[in-house]
Amino acid sequence: MEDLKKRAAYKAVDDYIRSNMIIGLGTGSTVFFVLERIASFLKDGTLENITCIPTSTDTEVKAKKLNIPLSSLYKDTKIDVAIDGTDEIDFDLNLIKGRGGALLREKLVAENTDLFIIVCDESKLCVNGLGLTGALPVEILNFGHEKIIEKLLNIAALKNCTYQLRKKNEQIFITDNNNYIVDLFFTSPIDNLVETSKLIKMTTGVIDHGIFINLAKVAILSKSDGTFTILKKNEHTK
Amino acid sequence: MEDLKKRAAYKAVDDYIRSNMIIGLGTGSTVFFVLERIASFLKDGTLENITCIPTSTDTEVKAKKLNIPLSSLYKDTKIDVAIDGTDEIDFDLNLIKGRGGALLREKLVAENTDLFIIVCDESKLCVNGLGLTGALPVEILNFGHEKIIEKLLNIAALKNCTYQLRKKNEQIFITDNNNYIVDLFFTSPIDNLVETSKLIKMTTGVIDHGIFINLAKVAILSKSDGTFTILKKNEHTK
Repeated sequence: MEDLKKRAAYKAVDDYIRSNMIIGLGTGSTVFFVLERIASFLKDGTLENITCIPTSTDTEVKAKKLNIPLSSLYKDTKIDVAIDGTDEIDFDLNLIKGRGGALLREKLVAENTDLFIIVCDESKLCVNGLGLTGALPVEILNFGHEKIIEKLLNIAALKNCTYQLRKKNEQIFITDNNNYIVDLFFTSPIDNLVETSKLIKMTTGVIDHGIFINLAKVAILSKSDGTFTILKKNEHTK
Repeated sequence: MEDLKKRAAYKAVDDYIRSNMIIGLGTGSTVFFVLERIASFLKDGTLENITCIPTSTDTEVKAKKLNIPLSSLYKDTKIDVAIDGTDEIDFDLNLIKGRGGALLREKLVAENTDLFIIVCDESKLCVNGLGLTGALPVEILNFGHEKIIEKLLNIAALKNCTYQLRKKNEQIFITDNNNYIVDLFFTSPIDNLVETSKLIKMTTGVIDHGIFINLAKVAILSKSDGTFTILKKNEHTK
């Protein structure tokens, strides 16, 4: 599995990252291999003058250790490419992300780059709809979080969901933005993805959620036979 | 002006607060007089067994000093009445709030009570639409805030707005939820309030905003001649 992640990550860097670029860096175990590849290319001179924008404290710390030059997302920042992992992806390149807990900054970076690339292994491809391999994470305010969850469960597509307030080491998990995450579990693929994602975001107390629609342009999925499945937005959308 | 605020606040407590209630407490200078009145009635025995839910650290600190029993917003909390001030109000009881910086918790409390009462002086009544007496506050993530503001200004009704990132004592103002506030300034009344408020909330990185639609049920506006204007939702909506 680690090898599959590494191959997808390396291929994204090799195919899409060039010198003088500003690069958005996602979060998670697959993205770690993106960092590793960039760092090694900076060291041997293959890449020069790279600036990276991390989407989490975790990625920031790891990138710093690897001596990757970092910045943040400012008014005039033009992100050339952003590379991130995903928890689920469908043939339209819609995603469910955030099981690692960093969804909001990832979405902001994804919205502010021309080329958002997903790297993952083939197991993340969901051919029968999204929402069945694990949770849909929703970042919510801590104040009144039980009421916020109650409101969420009134949304039609979420009526049959079970939920868990995310914990880590027996404590409530706190995001980089000091919020909670409620994990929603579906028993059938998420109905009407666009409308459902709007209703979730519209709920008072919701900061954001893990549904990413119309953001990814390319997905590199590594297969266990050593090859790749490459999905591109314009070639695969209905 | 202080006297106008005090009279509206006192009237709301006198008319609507009874013993054994759970009460939502807004934020700001007018709400301070609500606290003062409740505290005095608790002291003299007029009110008993009151629990209050503050919508900001500021209100929490002030209520504690006045020995008002406090709680928070939990799963089974049934708020009987919530009382809050406002920056602007129209005849439909739509509001603009948050110039004091506490809009999100206020909105959560307002959504979770059957009776949301506004107290203010008559100058807050805007007969020609909302948005002209000051800023519309929007709470946004600090990460990428300049990009978030750029996206906001692309919303049709916000195209002609000027904006300021809120500061306090020369520093960027930080909300109770650790976010920034961008203040949007309009030159004509906010167009299409319902749709505009949706588009603002839908923007990635927006936590919430100061437009309160369909939440207030009663407004007590004190007038300089010593009388009140009372607006009630069902009697004044179109």
